[in-house]
Amino acid sequence: MTKLDAVLNRIDDQLPQSIDRLFELLRIKSISTDPAFTQDCREAAQWLVNDLQTIGFEASMRDTDGHPMVVGHQQGPENSPHLLFYGHYDVQPVDPLNLWNQPPFEPVINELNDGRKQIHGRGSADDKGQLMTFVEACRCWKQETGTLPCSLTILFEGEEESGSPSLLPFFEANATELTCDLALVCDTGMWDIETPAISTSLRGMVTEDFIIKAADRDLHSGHYGGAAANPIHILTKILAGLHDDSGRVTLEGFYDDVEELPDELRQRWEQLGFDAEKFLSDIGLSMPAGEANRSVLEQIWSRPTAEVNGIQGGYSGDGFKTVIAAQASAKVSFRLVSNMDPDKVHASFKNFLENQLPEDCTVEYLGYSGAPAITLDHTLPQIKMAADVLEQEWGNPAAMVAMGGSVPIVGEFKRVLGMDSLMVGFGLEDDAIHSPNEKYELSSFHKGTRSWARILGALAQ
Amino acid sequence: MTKLDAVLNRIDDQLPQSIDRLFELLRIKSISTDPAFTQDCREAAQWLVNDLQTIGFEASMRDTDGHPMVVGHQQGPENSPHLLFYGHYDVQPVDPLNLWNQPPFEPVINELNDGRKQIHGRGSADDKGQLMTFVEACRCWKQETGTLPCSLTILFEGEEESGSPSLLPFFEANATELTCDLALVCDTGMWDIETPAISTSLRGMVTEDFIIKAADRDLHSGHYGGAAANPIHILTKILAGLHDDSGRVTLEGFYDDVEELPDELRQRWEQLGFDAEKFLSDIGLSMPAGEANRSVLEQIWSRPTAEVNGIQGGYSGDGFKTVIAAQASAKVSFRLVSNMDPDKVHASFKNFLENQLPEDCTVEYLGYSGAPAITLDHTLPQIKMAADVLEQEWGNPAAMVAMGGSVPIVGEFKRVLGMDSLMVGFGLEDDAIHSPNEKYELSSFHKGTRSWARILGALAQ
Repeated sequence: MTKLDAVLNRIDDQLPQSIDRLFELLRIKSISTDPAFTQDCREAAQWLVNDLQTIGFEASMRDTDGHPMVVGHQQGPENSPHLLFYGHYDVQPVDPLNLWNQPPFEPVINELNDGRKQIHGRGSADDKGQLMTFVEACRCWKQETGTLPCSLTILFEGEEESGSPSLLPFFEANATELTCDLALVCDTGMWDIETPAISTSLRGMVTEDFIIKAADRDLHSGHYGGAAANPIHILTKILAGLHDDSGRVTLEGFYDDVEELPDELRQRWEQLGFDAEKFLSDIGLSMPAGEANRSVLEQIWSRPTAEVNGIQGGYSGDGFKTVIAAQASAKVSFRLVSNMDPDKVHASFKNFLENQLPEDCTVEYLGYSGAPAITLDHTLPQIKMAADVLEQEWGNPAAMVAMGGSVPIVGEFKRVLGMDSLMVGFGLEDDAIHSPNEKYELSSFHKGTRSWARILGALAQ
Repeated sequence: MTKLDAVLNRIDDQLPQSIDRLFELLRIKSISTDPAFTQDCREAAQWLVNDLQTIGFEASMRDTDGHPMVVGHQQGPENSPHLLFYGHYDVQPVDPLNLWNQPPFEPVINELNDGRKQIHGRGSADDKGQLMTFVEACRCWKQETGTLPCSLTILFEGEEESGSPSLLPFFEANATELTCDLALVCDTGMWDIETPAISTSLRGMVTEDFIIKAADRDLHSGHYGGAAANPIHILTKILAGLHDDSGRVTLEGFYDDVEELPDELRQRWEQLGFDAEKFLSDIGLSMPAGEANRSVLEQIWSRPTAEVNGIQGGYSGDGFKTVIAAQASAKVSFRLVSNMDPDKVHASFKNFLENQLPEDCTVEYLGYSGAPAITLDHTLPQIKMAADVLEQEWGNPAAMVAMGGSVPIVGEFKRVLGMDSLMVGFGLEDDAIHSPNEKYELSSFHKGTRSWARILGALAQ
């Protein structure tokens, strides 16, 4: 039996204990966007420090202006590569709470009729379940062989769901400590439940949160309706104008830096056998809503978007209130591709908005964040090695895919620390991350752990 | 000293006790639209029953399918006219609570630098303060002379702010009991703080509350953005399309039954010396936002409108959540004029909405209410009598005005019970009814009570 086989056996044997540890972490309410959960975020960080220490990492919690970072170091065999693993311990808010079938922070394993088992709870897939696949792989390598196969630095962030404001200053202040040969990132998904995937491109993102203000107080629509500016009308007009009838975003210059999909990549994607109809029917829809004349895969992987993520104004309680609100607010995000510049997109949006604002109304901006899109070199030898061992674990070749979501850290690793990233993750489309009833397949957790054990073994060669 | 003078003196003497009684009523949280306050509504009704009984009314609480009615009867001198007075004891919701300078249900009198005194609290102007002007006038007539000057039926409703669902069935079941010679309604305003007004026309209203539903759950905008229908986009497009660039409502047939303002009325309104600039600057605005080429007075009195009173969708908490919501909702109201048919407007709106709904999305309607506009015959002798005594009280001639708001009861009085209405009220534009920091001028309360005492005396002749 090879060392690797022994490690894999140990992972199988210790699955119950691995699940217990994951559940401990899932119970901590580490919602980073809501200041009410600041102490919970700290508790999650401390839990990870303690757990890494049990595996022999020199681990500590590192304060920032926001939620703390967790950093751990452990030497591997001499001349082994030095890898940095990244994950995040913070989770999305849980509202609307009434749509959860179980309390979001009381994780359970549910068994489906076909025997599939799923871990339910906020953070099970994004990203606590994913990061623990790597931690458990390290634990079993260490326990079985007395050492890790490679030198490792582990970095867990607590602000991924809130725009990572502390990340860049932390990188800049600790560049030497954090720079390794390659970064491993586990925050992406599989192609399907039986097919692993390596992500080689990611969309970037711009977010803005703003309030449009009209009268200096709420007004009675009977007394003022027809004469007074209604900020909801102004807001809906602005937001409705973000897309033209063909689904294209109307911001000036929005598509200037967008490249068409290369023919080679288009062919590779066509061969993936993506079922657009099923993709939509799985979420209760039947018609692609985006840009006309683009495939669904293009729409979600290689085309930029504008989405309104939240809107609020006036009375929204039970019954009716004939009010003209004093203000109305929205949260808007743009997904970026190719070389789109976040600052340029943001400036164009502000310009678009302000051009439509009546002179006696104002806008207050609450917070801009931006990150460019990322394209990785898929000819890296480490990507090839990882693809080979993923195929051994899952029985299907790893798909080389683009991702619609953003993992801004990958860009920062390259830009600030000069590191390439290997993005491997075990999430599925139906994991309902950011939604009620988030889940993670037990097979993702178990075989994900085995996958990392294999990847560590392969990269050590 | 005439009987009336003695009554007016008594009103002056008893002002402190009148205020104490009003404050007791204002402390009761009778928010009719929110089921959490059902018991409070009942408590307000019971308080009024008790108070009417102290004035010698045969008063009782009358159950309905919703909040109870209060009905009181008292005979006046033989052959005196029989009048019905209407007011409502329910109030608007109080959110956003953080914008109130004082707790909404803990009334206080604040004195301004110029010596003006204002009663602050939810319901102070709409409509508890107003209805108590009439009750206090009755009390002083009774105490001073041993009898009321006219036979009176009093009707207090508890669902005016929630569309009056129980009113029509109650009228139909109690038509004989409620039919009088004339209805008196105190739910309107003055021309300005020194000039009383009689309202001779009111806009009607249609309200609808609806939810647009897309995917069967909230989605991650990274994974689905660009392909999945976003219900906020659909909703904003529909709402933004309700008005064209000239501010006209785009619903099919919307203006079919709208009459142009008669020249005579236009001239009368021009003579009122309405200051449109001040009207807008008082609420922090400077530009009329409604139909182009219409005066502000036309916009608020004689033109129909469409207003979005509330909108809600996606994430609106602190921070950012890159979600594509499963649904988005809005509350929309239309103010009607002339002979516009509420059912026709409602059907046209539904048609407008559904024509823009993608095939894989649905709409759920939560509640339609409608009432036509009302125009009263301003040549009624009682209107002339009231105008004369209002001028005696205030020193300025009473303005004959239109009202932008709706008082649907006036239409029901005419249609179901065959009664004309005299609409006299003492609210002011800046009373902030339906808003935080609602107030009622102490002069409105005091001189309003005196005004009703005079009107009762005049109508008794």
